[in-house]
Amino acid sequence: MENVLAVLNLGDFAQAFSKMGMFPVFDVAYYIVSILYLKYEPGSVEVSRRSPVASWLCAMLYCFGSYILADIMLGSSPLDYFQYNSHILLASAVWYLIFYCPLNLFYKCVAFLPVKLVLVALKEVVRTRKIAAGVHHAHHAYHHGYFIMVVVGYVKGSGVALISNFEQLLRGVWRPETNEILNMSFPTKASLYGAILFTLQESHWLPVSKSVLILVFTLFMATAKVKPSPETRTSYYVRSEASRVAKDYSPVRVALLQHTFTKVKVKSSHTRQKTQTHQLNTSQNWNYPVRDVSGIHLFHFV
Amino acid sequence: MENVLAVLNLGDFAQAFSKMGMFPVFDVAYYIVSILYLKYEPGSVEVSRRSPVASWLCAMLYCFGSYILADIMLGSSPLDYFQYNSHILLASAVWYLIFYCPLNLFYKCVAFLPVKLVLVALKEVVRTRKIAAGVHHAHHAYHHGYFIMVVVGYVKGSGVALISNFEQLLRGVWRPETNEILNMSFPTKASLYGAILFTLQESHWLPVSKSVLILVFTLFMATAKVKPSPETRTSYYVRSEASRVAKDYSPVRVALLQHTFTKVKVKSSHTRQKTQTHQLNTSQNWNYPVRDVSGIHLFHFV
Amino acid sequence: MENVLAVLNLGDFAQAFSKMGMFPVFDVAYYIVSILYLKYEPGSVEVSRRSPVASWLCAMLYCFGSYILADIMLGSSPLDYFQYNSHILLASAVWYLIFYCPLNLFYKCVAFLPVKLVLVALKEVVRTRKIAAGVHHAHHAYHHGYFIMVVVGYVKGSGVALISNFEQLLRGVWRPETNEILNMSFPTKASLYGAILFTLQESHWLPVSKSVLILVFTLFMATAKVKPSPETRTSYYVRSEASRVAKDYSPVRVALLQHTFTKVKVKSSHTRQKTQTHQLNTSQNWNYPVRDVSGIHLFHFV
Repeated sequence: MENVLAVLNLGDFAQAFSKMGMFPVFDVAYYIVSILYLKYEPGSVEVSRRSPVASWLCAMLYCFGSYILADIMLGSSPLDYFQYNSHILLASAVWYLIFYCPLNLFYKCVAFLPVKLVLVALKEVVRTRKIAAGVHHAHHAYHHGYFIMVVVGYVKGSGVALISNFEQLLRGVWRPETNEILNMSFPTKASLYGAILFTLQESHWLPVSKSVLILVFTLFMATAKVKPSPETRTSYYVRSEASRVAKDYSPVRVALLQHTFTKVKVKSSHTRQKTQTHQLNTSQNWNYPVRDVSGIHLFHFV
Repeated sequence: MENVLAVLNLGDFAQAFSKMGMFPVFDVAYYIVSILYLKYEPGSVEVSRRSPVASWLCAMLYCFGSYILADIMLGSSPLDYFQYNSHILLASAVWYLIFYCPLNLFYKCVAFLPVKLVLVALKEVVRTRKIAAGVHHAHHAYHHGYFIMVVVGYVKGSGVALISNFEQLLRGVWRPETNEILNMSFPTKASLYGAILFTLQESHWLPVSKSVLILVFTLFMATAKVKPSPETRTSYYVRSEASRVAKDYSPVRVALLQHTFTKVKVKSSHTRQKTQTHQLNTSQNWNYPVRDVSGIHLFHFV
Repeated sequence: MENVLAVLNLGDFAQAFSKMGMFPVFDVAYYIVSILYLKYEPGSVEVSRRSPVASWLCAMLYCFGSYILADIMLGSSPLDYFQYNSHILLASAVWYLIFYCPLNLFYKCVAFLPVKLVLVALKEVVRTRKIAAGVHHAHHAYHHGYFIMVVVGYVKGSGVALISNFEQLLRGVWRPETNEILNMSFPTKASLYGAILFTLQESHWLPVSKSVLILVFTLFMATAKVKPSPETRTSYYVRSEASRVAKDYSPVRVALLQHTFTKVKVKSSHTRQKTQTHQLNTSQNWNYPVRDVSGIHLFHFV
């Protein structure tokens, strides 16, 4: 009896959760985290000084890349989402604050780890919704186009990551030797699995209601992003960070980094670590991604 | 009298030929030959091991690139053709068998020269049909858009070749110094002429029925691909192969190759030659296309 | 009283000016100037010899890039404008004459400075009209999509400049380190401001009639392009030309160039200078833009 009630309550909660409006709180969190990752990109701060138009365009790609891509995939106007002026203005305000706020104040606030963890969790709520909406939209256009549903959902979940080569090109950076499909990051991979799950649900092959699936997938994503298990975290992030640095640095430095990084992970829950954001954004090191390795990259390329 | 009868019979045959269904036999041949050419691309086997998603996407571009491009050109959804799940599943099965079949068995069967010759001939049947369908489709959308008809027919006939730069980028390879329009291969050039012919036919400037044109163009393409005249073959292929190899190798090796290759050509109709597929797919030689030169490239980049 | 009459007359004139047909005189001027700039691109003459199809495609991008981009932005077929066969044939004729005319006669005529000044002025008339039409078109599709209007107007005014990276790729040239958005040229920047002005007008925030705005903006653009004030011209063009050359040449040569160029500017209004078109189009120097510096680049990348 109590079991049934619990299930019913979960269903009600999931229903309410899946109906909850995203604008403006969740959307703002999404914009903040997205543009934060743009600022982490080497050279992006310099670009914002040299050409605000290019920087703004990149920020829009980071915030609305998923809509643009999904619209292209379904043959609509890629600018379709730009008719929502309030969303664009909000994202532009966030972009302005992150890049041009005096004393870098806004950036310091949102990049502060506890704040950022909350924002990242909120962002995952938006991502899951986007995947579900993308699959639903594609299902509406192509009733039995299972591949189309998966692709549109995938694209809605991954966004700018899938076109990062061209987003970089806009900033004058060109790295053809890799791309997000060749080396999938965790969020891109999870978006693919999510898109497959939502497609199965939409085609009634997965006997679960959409609201429950949204709730479960959101919880999974937020948990995976905000507090991964110690083993995974150490192995996944250290490896990825070390491999990225290994291209440019001597083995000694990599070993040191790996050592430090592992320690930082262990400590991060107890003590507050200094987040040294030494973004060396000079034109010389555009091709050498030097990133701060003090926890800020826990959730890189979200 | 007999002459007229013969003409009538040809007309009937052409009519029957142009109505013949392509699915599944011809389509499978098309998929096999297309994905075979993907496998010949240096680095593609390694990509299939590192990132099956990227490899699958490349295979889909090779099989359905012409539909994707034509849909983009006419302003439809680029994923439109992906609603035909059976076609996608069939192409995916072919991709799986060619890249992951135990002992490379499937690949060895279809790359066996006599089998391949038949498949290549079947593929040309599909190509001609695609050009005709593309021109017809464009004519339906733009009644007097002669340039649009030619472009759509061209794109339908050439497919992935026209976007090979971006298909390579998906595999982490970037060769901006050339592209298919700057250095047209025989099939691309033939597709252009075919598109012009079908446009003239569609606009009633060419006094010939479409079915006859389909038959004649198919025969021309299949013949040109499967058994070119000895002179042409030797000159065209040896030159193209030698020039491709010349970029990477010493003149001595090129001379040797040219010698061997010419000999192989002469022998190929009498004896069975060993097809050594030594695909050296390491990341070091991604940019140095080393291809097997034993006849398998007779029909390269179809 | 007379004042009012003058205003009325201006209004009438603006009305008549904004209704004036562009085809064929103004359009031909647009095609000539556009394809002239294609011919100035290093390597483009060689491409026209190696692959006329690639050269023709580039010419079409230069002439109709603005239509193609605007159609893509609004979700239409990128080939939509190619249904106007007369326009395409006219542009193709201009392309043929500029690249293949015996003795380079046509090129010499239209590159003759006084003729070119008139053509450039006529081109600016077309550009302004395009921006206004683009904003109007976007307004029709998205009544309150202010961002969409600005983007479509911008794209209509800038045309091929915005996709110059991909236009160059078609000719086998790849310069990822820069693009038109990162380093905006004067016409691109002016198009952006123009698009913003026309959007404000279209949304009734700018209390001025569209015909007057067209007239004023055309006059501004034509004046800015044809006779900039001596100070601006010297500083802007010499700096841009010198910086472009500085990448490849020794400081001595740059100093010499700067010296010569400044002199030429001063003299150009009094005397006729020889236009030495020494386009060194060999594959070796594709990546080293060597341009003639004798005034012909006054209006580069229009």
